[in-house]
Amino acid sequence: MTALLTTDPRTGAQTDTGISATTPEEVAAIAGRAAEAFAALRAHPRAWRAGLLRALADGLEADRDELVAAALAETGLAEARLNGELSRSAFQFRLFADAVDEGGYLEAIIDHAGDTPLGPGPDVRRMLVPIGPIAVFGSSNFPFAFSVVGGDTASALAAGNPVVIKAHSSHLLTSQRSFAALTRAAASYGAPGGTFGMVFGQKAGAVLVADAQIAAVGFTGSLHTGRILQRIIDERPSPIPFYGELASLNPLVITAGAADARTLAIGEGLFASVSGSAGQLCTKPGLAFVPNGDAGDALVADIVSRAEGAAAQTLLNARIRTSFDEIRARLIAHGGARSLVEPAAGEAGYALTPAVLEIAARDVTAEVTEEAFGPLVVLVRYDTVDDVRQALDAVPDSLTATIHAEPHEDGVRAALTAAVVDRVGRIVYNGYPTGVRVSWGMHHGGPWPATNTQHTSVGVTAIRRFLRPLAWQDAPESLLPAELRDGPCDAPRRVDGVLQLAQH
Amino acid sequence: MTALLTTDPRTGAQTDTGISATTPEEVAAIAGRAAEAFAALRAHPRAWRAGLLRALADGLEADRDELVAAALAETGLAEARLNGELSRSAFQFRLFADAVDEGGYLEAIIDHAGDTPLGPGPDVRRMLVPIGPIAVFGSSNFPFAFSVVGGDTASALAAGNPVVIKAHSSHLLTSQRSFAALTRAAASYGAPGGTFGMVFGQKAGAVLVADAQIAAVGFTGSLHTGRILQRIIDERPSPIPFYGELASLNPLVITAGAADARTLAIGEGLFASVSGSAGQLCTKPGLAFVPNGDAGDALVADIVSRAEGAAAQTLLNARIRTSFDEIRARLIAHGGARSLVEPAAGEAGYALTPAVLEIAARDVTAEVTEEAFGPLVVLVRYDTVDDVRQALDAVPDSLTATIHAEPHEDGVRAALTAAVVDRVGRIVYNGYPTGVRVSWGMHHGGPWPATNTQHTSVGVTAIRRFLRPLAWQDAPESLLPAELRDGPCDAPRRVDGVLQLAQH
Repeated sequence: MTALLTTDPRTGAQTDTGISATTPEEVAAIAGRAAEAFAALRAHPRAWRAGLLRALADGLEADRDELVAAALAETGLAEARLNGELSRSAFQFRLFADAVDEGGYLEAIIDHAGDTPLGPGPDVRRMLVPIGPIAVFGSSNFPFAFSVVGGDTASALAAGNPVVIKAHSSHLLTSQRSFAALTRAAASYGAPGGTFGMVFGQKAGAVLVADAQIAAVGFTGSLHTGRILQRIIDERPSPIPFYGELASLNPLVITAGAADARTLAIGEGLFASVSGSAGQLCTKPGLAFVPNGDAGDALVADIVSRAEGAAAQTLLNARIRTSFDEIRARLIAHGGARSLVEPAAGEAGYALTPAVLEIAARDVTAEVTEEAFGPLVVLVRYDTVDDVRQALDAVPDSLTATIHAEPHEDGVRAALTAAVVDRVGRIVYNGYPTGVRVSWGMHHGGPWPATNTQHTSVGVTAIRRFLRPLAWQDAPESLLPAELRDGPCDAPRRVDGVLQLAQH
Repeated sequence: MTALLTTDPRTGAQTDTGISATTPEEVAAIAGRAAEAFAALRAHPRAWRAGLLRALADGLEADRDELVAAALAETGLAEARLNGELSRSAFQFRLFADAVDEGGYLEAIIDHAGDTPLGPGPDVRRMLVPIGPIAVFGSSNFPFAFSVVGGDTASALAAGNPVVIKAHSSHLLTSQRSFAALTRAAASYGAPGGTFGMVFGQKAGAVLVADAQIAAVGFTGSLHTGRILQRIIDERPSPIPFYGELASLNPLVITAGAADARTLAIGEGLFASVSGSAGQLCTKPGLAFVPNGDAGDALVADIVSRAEGAAAQTLLNARIRTSFDEIRARLIAHGGARSLVEPAAGEAGYALTPAVLEIAARDVTAEVTEEAFGPLVVLVRYDTVDDVRQALDAVPDSLTATIHAEPHEDGVRAALTAAVVDRVGRIVYNGYPTGVRVSWGMHHGGPWPATNTQHTSVGVTAIRRFLRPLAWQDAPESLLPAELRDGPCDAPRRVDGVLQLAQH
């Protein structure tokens, strides 16, 4: 069997990983072990699982140097960024541990038996329960935070499910080492053996999604691959939930007032948001609306000058590098965008400098709204809020929209908010959509094609994806989960319609 | 244009309704008015919407006599049942009004800006918001509670969305009159004109689902029609959520102890659950496991005797009547079931008496697990819990499972619970799955093919289907919804990770 290759995107050099593609038989065995682990995981209370999540965070940090070194060699991302991402992943496990301890995510409800306007009602108790082994597809652009040790893994496990990860082909060794860190920490903690599984190779990923033991799929990647996975799911005898984060252009609008008051600050912030991590973030503002006039011209000039002075940054892999050139060419040839700054290839590997394009708002069509992964922004010049609104009609719905406006521009700010509110999952004011905060309330989702569901993949409520409601009617107390028994409860719940806080 | 016909299932006689099928142009206009109403509805606070829901309940009850009379003529269901269903629909509107007033369904979360282990975090506030006009497909078997004035309409509106209903062809005049009751009450209350819309005809339903203004679809019906609607959604430029309640066999297991201790009580209860509403309930237990031995034999004899003595009941329409015979024949010919009681056709229309089939647990295959809508039960005779477990492997996942066991049968009861827990959305003990309580905690859903999502279509949490999360980052207070502003709040919310009760 041939081993899979990994590539250093800084040089393009390929090396043998020693890892073989997982065979269909191996995938079935891994999914089978996950199903066994599911039964074992259920026997443990919430506090045990919170402890497991914290042990994973500790294990990750203990292996920090080795993990960051592996990712450095495979992703071309900067060391500071990778260290930050590893910290973020550890923080994420700990935040989910807090959420599991807190218990609100269970949405526990007790309706006691009693007379109702419709006659006697039975005792009904409901809460969310885990659903089974979850397939998680690592994404290329976050080798930690959206990959083996990322948010989908953390939220699926927080819910009580085992996880089988499809390693991303762009960082196979990072995946292998991340997996080793997870399994070592889990084993020391006493978790069942099949709590984590991993498969390698595109075909193995497809086999995994089709496996009858798999209960849901978490995916961050392209619309194209997302559609392939959805088709596999549709052909299963029992379709399962598919949570895909797919494509996002993240429009950003700068009002005349903001361009005037904060020209250089916005130039700096926007350029950093567009070019950070070589523009390979799903919340990168791909389209920035800049007003016509002197302040807007100055802002454009500032961004152009920053782009022209920028060093080359390395893209993650050959496919992204090739797509970048192809999409940029299409935005110009078919979209009618004008090139303000031409990207220049770096000396080796997949490196290049940022690209800046410009177009008038009235010329914005679907052809100029293709997402270009990499350091590219299309500056859209406009006169009125109506121009922005009309241009947005050609922009696919997104994860985020951002509005830069001054306090005295109340009316414009409200009108712009109304123009984006139905199109996105998060509205950012006077900031930047990149650098997604991992917190209780973060929402990282949005209408199609941003995602294909009404859920988030970042923040505590991401756990909801991997749970389903279950109701017990007139159940003997011994068969109820602890959180649904009468008496004090360590989780919040709704009893006979009244929300009650946890009691400790 | 030819008018649509309605049929009295008691006689088979058809009459002209005077209603024409809605044209594609009319569907587009109705969806357009719904989109306008969506914008208007958003301007109103929760208390206003709660008032609207209560006004609808009052309007429904004011028109009770006329509505029940219309349904009597079109459905063949009994008057008491229809009166109860209308009361249930009114109760449902009022319960959802209470939930809207209470505000917990918003899942409001505030994370204030501040230092985090990952550096300074922005202010992030998140809650659920309505998604837009909802298409609701009325079901044949509940002309009120799962039709024009039913749970999908109530939950979509409670969430803040306008509703466009596809009238079920089996009760066109009931739908028309229900719609008149809704729109009259809504208009008196001052709701915008497009809050409710209705379309008639199968083609109009398909056009509605494809309309770009429609944001989600609620459906209760057959797997076959569900698949057709899903295909239309998949072909939209922007796919939308589809909430389908599709098929359910609802296995019921009687232990040896229960069969012995409560032979006649279970015979009476099970027969009522199987034959009530002529067996046309989605939670009807289609498969009942009865132990081998004297007590089980006595229980079977009791059910047989009840079935043999039962009067004919009228099925809803010609399709259900024809399917009933076809499916029953397949259960015998291909499934290997033995007929204990042959159904007899009634004197006129679509009436028939109940059918009872029997099979040994070890002979249960997929061929004997087809859902037969109507008064039919397959009695499965078994020796051990293992027999039950193995037979369940051939049973598609369901909305419910029911376990009848005695207090001294702890072990068996726990083993049976473990055998069904991953297969259903609700487990009923020593009761019957029909007569679904409308309450805060009810869950009426289940793994595929019971439904295609992780949501319920009965109970307060049904509202979640028609909402999506939205996050505001560093937003000016004036642009935040009332529930996300600092200071006292009349809805519960989580602030910096801590759940807080509403303050009044």
